[in-house]
Amino acid sequence: MRISELSAASSVPVATIKYYLRERLLPEGRRSSATQATYGDAHVARLGVIRALVDSGVGIAGVRKVIAVLDDPPDDPYEILGAANGAVTPEAPDDIDLGAASALIDRMGGDADACFPEQVAAVAHALATLERAGFVVPPDVMTAYLRGLTSMADAELAATPIDSPEESVRYVVLGTVLVEPLILALRRVAEQIAAARQFGARR
Amino acid sequence: MRISELSAASSVPVATIKYYLRERLLPEGRRSSATQATYGDAHVARLGVIRALVDSGVGIAGVRKVIAVLDDPPDDPYEILGAANGAVTPEAPDDIDLGAASALIDRMGGDADACFPEQVAAVAHALATLERAGFVVPPDVMTAYLRGLTSMADAELAATPIDSPEESVRYVVLGTVLVEPLILALRRVAEQIAAARQFGARR
Repeated sequence: MRISELSAASSVPVATIKYYLRERLLPEGRRSSATQATYGDAHVARLGVIRALVDSGVGIAGVRKVIAVLDDPPDDPYEILGAANGAVTPEAPDDIDLGAASALIDRMGGDADACFPEQVAAVAHALATLERAGFVVPPDVMTAYLRGLTSMADAELAATPIDSPEESVRYVVLGTVLVEPLILALRRVAEQIAAARQFGARR
Repeated sequence: MRISELSAASSVPVATIKYYLRERLLPEGRRSSATQATYGDAHVARLGVIRALVDSGVGIAGVRKVIAVLDDPPDDPYEILGAANGAVTPEAPDDIDLGAASALIDRMGGDADACFPEQVAAVAHALATLERAGFVVPPDVMTAYLRGLTSMADAELAATPIDSPEESVRYVVLGTVLVEPLILALRRVAEQIAAARQFGARR
């Protein structure tokens, strides 16, 4: 299909498609003439992934990293997850104290030294942000977080498609990043349902 | 204290403090002369909240809404949560299909019609984003999400301080927004721990 048809099929404006082509986020189409190229379903699918990442707040640099993982999957499924995380986890300051983060990871049955450093730093950074705001997560609540997130992650990993590496990469990369807005949105609803139970909804 | 001392105490640059003053995110200090004002611990605390919200990716408009809730708490604890959510939940398009979102809310024991509309729309928007990317959350995984988030929300609400309205507003508003980066960061770690269990860490 032509770029105009690709735009229609993906509901992404032609100008935006050209931007993604310039940014090398989208592979070039097959040249059909000096001035025209034709695109296929792979381009539609790729645009869907790019848009979803952008809609999820991932920057162009992060999108590029995710696409690099999708295009050239690591052999080791365990490395796939690290690549996915690394692609979308912002750099945290090196001087950050990892003590409290390591303790939480330990409670989840993990080992901070075996975790990808940017993940541990991200936890530490989140804890530091809370401390800066003078907000303390009650112990019982933190325990509920660790348990809930562990059970969620176990279910996610148990459902990882293993027949094709491409499929498992796609599942891990997109399942890690794209699902975040859903989890946050569902959390807000779960909080309201719990609030209605506890305080009683006047509705 | 003077603005320079406020800056030192809050580690927020003077220029940024002046910006927050202009934006009315920070209350004016007490005028000590035509050109000087003095600030107190309340200003330090407020700056901590503002910085934490900004660090969490909340825009100035969202910060302003959160502060409005903190400054003038609703009487009904149930309304507090809605105000907190409304303050930080972006508007979703009206034409979005709420069917799938309502079904998930129903499975969590809630009623979409009794939920704050922007919450339901946020879930629907997140689902639409996943669909656009061609990503399907496996049924068992979705079930784990609903269960995990419900147990987390129950723990959060059970720990809500009820002695003072200010405290409960602060807990709900900050606990809803500021904890999100921690939850996402812990989720990444939980996924890696689960991956190490399932695929075996080569480390």
